[in-house]
Amino acid sequence: MTEKTSNQMWGGRFAAGPDAIMEAINASISYDQRMAPQDIAGSRAHAAMLAATGIVTDKDAETMREGLLTVLSEIEGGTFEFSTALEDIHMNVEARLKEIIGEPAGRLHTGRSRNDQVATDFKLWVRDQMDAAIEGIDALIRALLAQAEAGADWVMPGFTHLQTAQPVTWGHHMMAYVEMLGRDMSRFKDARARMNESPLGAAALAGTSFPIDREMTAKALGFDRPAANSLDAVSDRDFALEFLSCASICAMHLSRFAEELVIWSSAQFRFVTLSDRFSTGSSIMPQKKNPDAAELIRAKIGRIFGAHVALMMVMKGLPLAYSKDMQEDKEQVFDAADNLMLALAAMTGMVADMSANRPSLEAAAGSGFSTATDLADWLVRELNLPFRDAHHVTGALVAMAEGAGVDLPDLTLAQMQSVHGGITEAVFGVLGVHNSVASRMSYGGTAPAQVRAQVARWKEILA
Amino acid sequence: MTEKTSNQMWGGRFAAGPDAIMEAINASISYDQRMAPQDIAGSRAHAAMLAATGIVTDKDAETMREGLLTVLSEIEGGTFEFSTALEDIHMNVEARLKEIIGEPAGRLHTGRSRNDQVATDFKLWVRDQMDAAIEGIDALIRALLAQAEAGADWVMPGFTHLQTAQPVTWGHHMMAYVEMLGRDMSRFKDARARMNESPLGAAALAGTSFPIDREMTAKALGFDRPAANSLDAVSDRDFALEFLSCASICAMHLSRFAEELVIWSSAQFRFVTLSDRFSTGSSIMPQKKNPDAAELIRAKIGRIFGAHVALMMVMKGLPLAYSKDMQEDKEQVFDAADNLMLALAAMTGMVADMSANRPSLEAAAGSGFSTATDLADWLVRELNLPFRDAHHVTGALVAMAEGAGVDLPDLTLAQMQSVHGGITEAVFGVLGVHNSVASRMSYGGTAPAQVRAQVARWKEILA
Amino acid sequence: MTEKTSNQMWGGRFAAGPDAIMEAINASISYDQRMAPQDIAGSRAHAAMLAATGIVTDKDAETMREGLLTVLSEIEGGTFEFSTALEDIHMNVEARLKEIIGEPAGRLHTGRSRNDQVATDFKLWVRDQMDAAIEGIDALIRALLAQAEAGADWVMPGFTHLQTAQPVTWGHHMMAYVEMLGRDMSRFKDARARMNESPLGAAALAGTSFPIDREMTAKALGFDRPAANSLDAVSDRDFALEFLSCASICAMHLSRFAEELVIWSSAQFRFVTLSDRFSTGSSIMPQKKNPDAAELIRAKIGRIFGAHVALMMVMKGLPLAYSKDMQEDKEQVFDAADNLMLALAAMTGMVADMSANRPSLEAAAGSGFSTATDLADWLVRELNLPFRDAHHVTGALVAMAEGAGVDLPDLTLAQMQSVHGGITEAVFGVLGVHNSVASRMSYGGTAPAQVRAQVARWKEILA
Amino acid sequence: MTEKTSNQMWGGRFAAGPDAIMEAINASISYDQRMAPQDIAGSRAHAAMLAATGIVTDKDAETMREGLLTVLSEIEGGTFEFSTALEDIHMNVEARLKEIIGEPAGRLHTGRSRNDQVATDFKLWVRDQMDAAIEGIDALIRALLAQAEAGADWVMPGFTHLQTAQPVTWGHHMMAYVEMLGRDMSRFKDARARMNESPLGAAALAGTSFPIDREMTAKALGFDRPAANSLDAVSDRDFALEFLSCASICAMHLSRFAEELVIWSSAQFRFVTLSDRFSTGSSIMPQKKNPDAAELIRAKIGRIFGAHVALMMVMKGLPLAYSKDMQEDKEQVFDAADNLMLALAAMTGMVADMSANRPSLEAAAGSGFSTATDLADWLVRELNLPFRDAHHVTGALVAMAEGAGVDLPDLTLAQMQSVHGGITEAVFGVLGVHNSVASRMSYGGTAPAQVRAQVARWKEILA
Repeated sequence: MTEKTSNQMWGGRFAAGPDAIMEAINASISYDQRMAPQDIAGSRAHAAMLAATGIVTDKDAETMREGLLTVLSEIEGGTFEFSTALEDIHMNVEARLKEIIGEPAGRLHTGRSRNDQVATDFKLWVRDQMDAAIEGIDALIRALLAQAEAGADWVMPGFTHLQTAQPVTWGHHMMAYVEMLGRDMSRFKDARARMNESPLGAAALAGTSFPIDREMTAKALGFDRPAANSLDAVSDRDFALEFLSCASICAMHLSRFAEELVIWSSAQFRFVTLSDRFSTGSSIMPQKKNPDAAELIRAKIGRIFGAHVALMMVMKGLPLAYSKDMQEDKEQVFDAADNLMLALAAMTGMVADMSANRPSLEAAAGSGFSTATDLADWLVRELNLPFRDAHHVTGALVAMAEGAGVDLPDLTLAQMQSVHGGITEAVFGVLGVHNSVASRMSYGGTAPAQVRAQVARWKEILA
Repeated sequence: MTEKTSNQMWGGRFAAGPDAIMEAINASISYDQRMAPQDIAGSRAHAAMLAATGIVTDKDAETMREGLLTVLSEIEGGTFEFSTALEDIHMNVEARLKEIIGEPAGRLHTGRSRNDQVATDFKLWVRDQMDAAIEGIDALIRALLAQAEAGADWVMPGFTHLQTAQPVTWGHHMMAYVEMLGRDMSRFKDARARMNESPLGAAALAGTSFPIDREMTAKALGFDRPAANSLDAVSDRDFALEFLSCASICAMHLSRFAEELVIWSSAQFRFVTLSDRFSTGSSIMPQKKNPDAAELIRAKIGRIFGAHVALMMVMKGLPLAYSKDMQEDKEQVFDAADNLMLALAAMTGMVADMSANRPSLEAAAGSGFSTATDLADWLVRELNLPFRDAHHVTGALVAMAEGAGVDLPDLTLAQMQSVHGGITEAVFGVLGVHNSVASRMSYGGTAPAQVRAQVARWKEILA
Repeated sequence: MTEKTSNQMWGGRFAAGPDAIMEAINASISYDQRMAPQDIAGSRAHAAMLAATGIVTDKDAETMREGLLTVLSEIEGGTFEFSTALEDIHMNVEARLKEIIGEPAGRLHTGRSRNDQVATDFKLWVRDQMDAAIEGIDALIRALLAQAEAGADWVMPGFTHLQTAQPVTWGHHMMAYVEMLGRDMSRFKDARARMNESPLGAAALAGTSFPIDREMTAKALGFDRPAANSLDAVSDRDFALEFLSCASICAMHLSRFAEELVIWSSAQFRFVTLSDRFSTGSSIMPQKKNPDAAELIRAKIGRIFGAHVALMMVMKGLPLAYSKDMQEDKEQVFDAADNLMLALAAMTGMVADMSANRPSLEAAAGSGFSTATDLADWLVRELNLPFRDAHHVTGALVAMAEGAGVDLPDLTLAQMQSVHGGITEAVFGVLGVHNSVASRMSYGGTAPAQVRAQVARWKEILA
Repeated sequence: MTEKTSNQMWGGRFAAGPDAIMEAINASISYDQRMAPQDIAGSRAHAAMLAATGIVTDKDAETMREGLLTVLSEIEGGTFEFSTALEDIHMNVEARLKEIIGEPAGRLHTGRSRNDQVATDFKLWVRDQMDAAIEGIDALIRALLAQAEAGADWVMPGFTHLQTAQPVTWGHHMMAYVEMLGRDMSRFKDARARMNESPLGAAALAGTSFPIDREMTAKALGFDRPAANSLDAVSDRDFALEFLSCASICAMHLSRFAEELVIWSSAQFRFVTLSDRFSTGSSIMPQKKNPDAAELIRAKIGRIFGAHVALMMVMKGLPLAYSKDMQEDKEQVFDAADNLMLALAAMTGMVADMSANRPSLEAAAGSGFSTATDLADWLVRELNLPFRDAHHVTGALVAMAEGAGVDLPDLTLAQMQSVHGGITEAVFGVLGVHNSVASRMSYGGTAPAQVRAQVARWKEILA
């Protein structure tokens, strides 16, 4: 029965035969209509340049520019009727412009081609997404800074292999993600600067014999300069791949934090309580709080990096200049961009809303003799023991504490001195999780003072 | 200016705050509505089973089953109003059922859960696509067989490194793809058989205490048997990954043929003429015939394999049983399936329509002394020369022909005997491209008789 | 300073100029020597066939076959000197054979070519790995069955979203992986059957004019039949891609179990204790037990699937028949196979050694009112309440228990009846985690009896 | 028979049981020994800092630093015996240092940990590869500039869809790749700057209580500054992912050029002749020239991007800080870096050696009425025809030429005027391929003057 459903769908769709198949595989208007604002901005800049260089009259240019605004308002108003027969957004806009302004519309395409037009539109769209990503990361960093500032001295376990290794502070953990996201932001900024060259005027692939002014259109569209080789300008999509790469690495960072939030939300950890807005519950199991948003964010790396793989495979081995394969670039980038922005927004909301469970964090931080390395370091530092001896003494003291069912700070000085006579009262200054974290004052260390310094540094950066 | 566009979009979308973000990331109804027929088929089978096992009354079951048909007809008729607040297709259908039939709707969910329901729906959907892929491949094989039969003895170059190596036949080249596609088909068949176990009745993850009959629902839905472990049944998506894997390998085969068609369509090769239906032209350059469909098919491997990467990353490292990450499974599979079917259909149409340019093929087949290996083989076979000597003699004859500006068959017997006295008139029987291909009579070889035998074998297989 | 290191390396390596670069990129002997046993087996089968068909003399064939055994023993004995100048394993073996047996060595290559030879060798190698994978999975399944049998009735939490959802049994959880691995095994078996066609005799690409017997060599090498199209036989690598695909899905399953073991080993969960053989500790933190093997297994999906991506990209868009790009196939498959076998072996050892912490598991299973759904189901089943009402009553009882700081089975009958008068003593038969799991008797459910039945079924399958 | 081979291998390898398996999966010394120079440089910097801050004596530090140089010379001299039991390069070096200098070796690890040590070593290694990539790209750009300068005015077809679209110049085509590679270089430079922060002193994850000077070690190792968060410093591998991303995009560009070289080398195109050093031939088919190096370069994108996928999957969802999964980072990056450098070197050699076949290029450039757009543009520009009319006139003229079996410049003025009376003698100034390319004087266009200007600009950039 379900087979029929499927057969009908495909049978129905392609019943009209080859033409329906070709239209289905060839037309892009269903998705590239999303670039309408960019297409119209590009055409308006081009029209102004055509007038400035005397290629068309000022009057014709003004008519075109006005007409394009009308088309844009129709699209934004939802009254524009997109036609699949006209294949793509460029032809849809041009055809409608002709209906509105008549003959001058035919002069708009002078000195350009669909190849440089689509490259320009797509670059403008991708550039917008780079800006949006930078903004989204900025917001998430601010949410993390607020958590870090509030919890600069809350202790929690620092894990290796998901085993408690050393106490750290909540603020320090939050600031680790600030650093990662800071690099993500810088990656987008570098990518934006690199791609900010205008393809407009590259024409089909060889440039043009019309006396166009590519500097002028580049400037009007916010590009730093025109692209220096017309073949390259219409052929490459490395800017889209670099966007996907930056997005993928950022999504990787988000997946790590999301994983932590899922684990921290478990009944076994209880390190954090997510707000009801970003989790779902069970009507009959009140303690169940499913971290849905965290799980969905964790999954986004698949989608975003999958898009990266897709476009990389498409571009592999394509001879210059334009090949139709490249039409597959847009849907991948659109989907990845949408999902990155969504993941950043959801993570920002979740971080802003979440509450650290300080008692659970502190209890976990102190378990498992997590300050044993502090003790060993003290023995090296203060008694000048070689590392190997310091470890030997520490192991003996841990065994003594374990045997007595207590933690290291609970041993008496006498007990300690029975293992090594040189130990003094001062040793208690490094035991206990608060002492431990306070002692890690090396630059970038977990000491609350260090965390607060980093928070201050980042506030200045973002100011 | 374009930045504003972007800001507005995201700003507008998420202006309503966290709830809008959560709904955007969490709801699946925008795409999983596509599984409505599968969802309703599953529910109808479940209702019939609940009655058969006495869990609900026959009357209630009948009411549910009728009501579900009503819902289906509303969806198919386009009058159903999907609600994002109801998140997914399952809740949309259930809520509407309740409106239609009232209280009995509340008994439909007895002995099942959303977890086994979604696994069942998705399996049914994927199974349909496996059937559709098998059909699509079948059609493409038939188109190739027609080409192979027509051109069983048309000679063309067999390339290695895109350099002419030996003459082959057009039919033989077509049949190479038939073999590849035959394996693709068999891959889908194996995958279909493997995944054809019903998750229904696995409930949330542990099975149920209701006396349900999973064999009955499995049978009603065309499954071979119920899945044997309820945790596994709701947790795994390997069937979707295997679909994506089969689709990716098939797309790889299509990408190779598409690449050949693009190269063969170039002015330099002119091996094939594509029909106007699958290419586009230029109004002012009549010879330009852009192989758009072939290029788009070549690109589909990116999209399909990108989906494979995406879902593989999503599934990596997920603890059992259900995690919300898995909601990302559907869009990837939907998109890959749609594009595979489209690529198969377009390739089938293109193959059916295309014309081989026999003169170009034959001329290319004979260039570059492509029958030199035939000559060397003849020397080994007939004169019992060791290979090394045969190669030496062949090299000398090729040099002689090259020096004279002729091809090997154009040398006289006397000229040949001047290089090796044992050569007889019979040597001409293996020179020339037609003689060459006719001689390759080993099983699976390029001889027309072998090609025809393979065409006949495949016709029988597909009959 | 480190830059210098790098410069020296590359400078040194390529100082000899273009020839050194070409040799570095072109030669494969450094890795394809691994296929020596397969290469020699193929050549020995080919020699026997050449004699049987009268293409060479029996005596020559015997000399070749003996000489090849000598070469093999030199390679296995470590005395063979591989030469990079001879590029690959095929030429290294052939050159050495010539040294050993002289002139007859020159007849071995009659009726075949390096293209079908390398395809044959590689297929034999991959087929071996499929067998090894099947064996490795078999061993892991047996280890899981032992765990499942021992713990068929040990209760533990069944998670969704890493939140306790319902109690399940340890055995049931182990058996979920048995089902997954069972499908993995079946995938390798299907792939092995599909690829088991012999390329030998396809020659360069067109077949041969020598009267070879491809059935005979196919049979001698354990193939089911000769491949039916010579172009396809030397051009495709779908068998390698399918191996990588099967390996990737299997690695995905392993990554999920590995993740669980990492989480279960944490101090917060303490569900499982890994043996010292598969974990590492700290001399001063006795409770730290790093699940190194589990983490490394979790990571293997990256490497294995990365190889899949690599080869898929290599094959994308390659025209027929052989292109040198395809030389990149081997290292990817070698590395993926080695790492799959290693991951399977390590997981098998870890599963065999690990100990479930039954008290922790049982305590966690009962927390969070995990039998609330059992109570709701009982109300539906026994009192015939509609689901909505059953959920309402359950919610009230959970609230009552939560308020009293007790679990559901700790409420008195009177307390229960104060919420719904129809509740009877029998309700206690489904509360408590042991009752809960025992009640899930639907096929494939978590009840110990169901688990034991599945263990028995699998023992029979593997017998 | 081959099965046995495989069984023996694995059986033999793991016959020793779990310990052998654990060692096989756990030890990294077989590959991370490659980081010995970086490890020793890091330790020497650390030792100097320990003395400067008074943590160890000057004498001890000097002893360590000398001893480390001895270890390095042993490794470089090939006399060092690596031990798998010591697992990794760090422990191998440290153990040997202890043998050489005794007790002071035990003080080297003060204030650091294996986690920050490995991050430092790996960063230094990756940084070296970024420098090597920049150098390799620089060399390739120079080879392309030489080709571009020589052929600034050689005409060739500019393709879209592998169909001749418009004439371009050889130099222009070469310069398209210069632009792409220029962005690749800039990507590596940005990545290098971003990652150039020192992890040393982050210790296990929390920083240290020793009064270390992280600025000093950072400076000594050429880092711009110490990393600002110790958790982040030991946990992230985004610098390795960014290297892989830059390498992948560069490999994508190389794959496109490689594909062109393969196609251009075909008998049908004959656009280019590769040198014998980068191709292979056939002893009996003198015209066969297999572009092996180009094919292998084309394939490298698979391997390099496959490594990217692998590491991205490894990092997905890893909780902080260090997990053993991350040990999988090195082999992927090592292999990708080696192959990128090899591909760049091979491409540089191939480009330096190749010869353009100017007659073939020019003939192809003029075929298919490739200057029809020049004619249409002239009609718009000079006669002020609207685009639509200009296309109509052009179409009629092309049809006339096609009917007469001539090219556009071969029509007489009278013939042209019979289609449109306004056409003047001046039209011949834009017809013909040389006129066409000369007219494309827009910035970045294909005109020889533009090409020469770009060559000059790039020479200045690289100077």
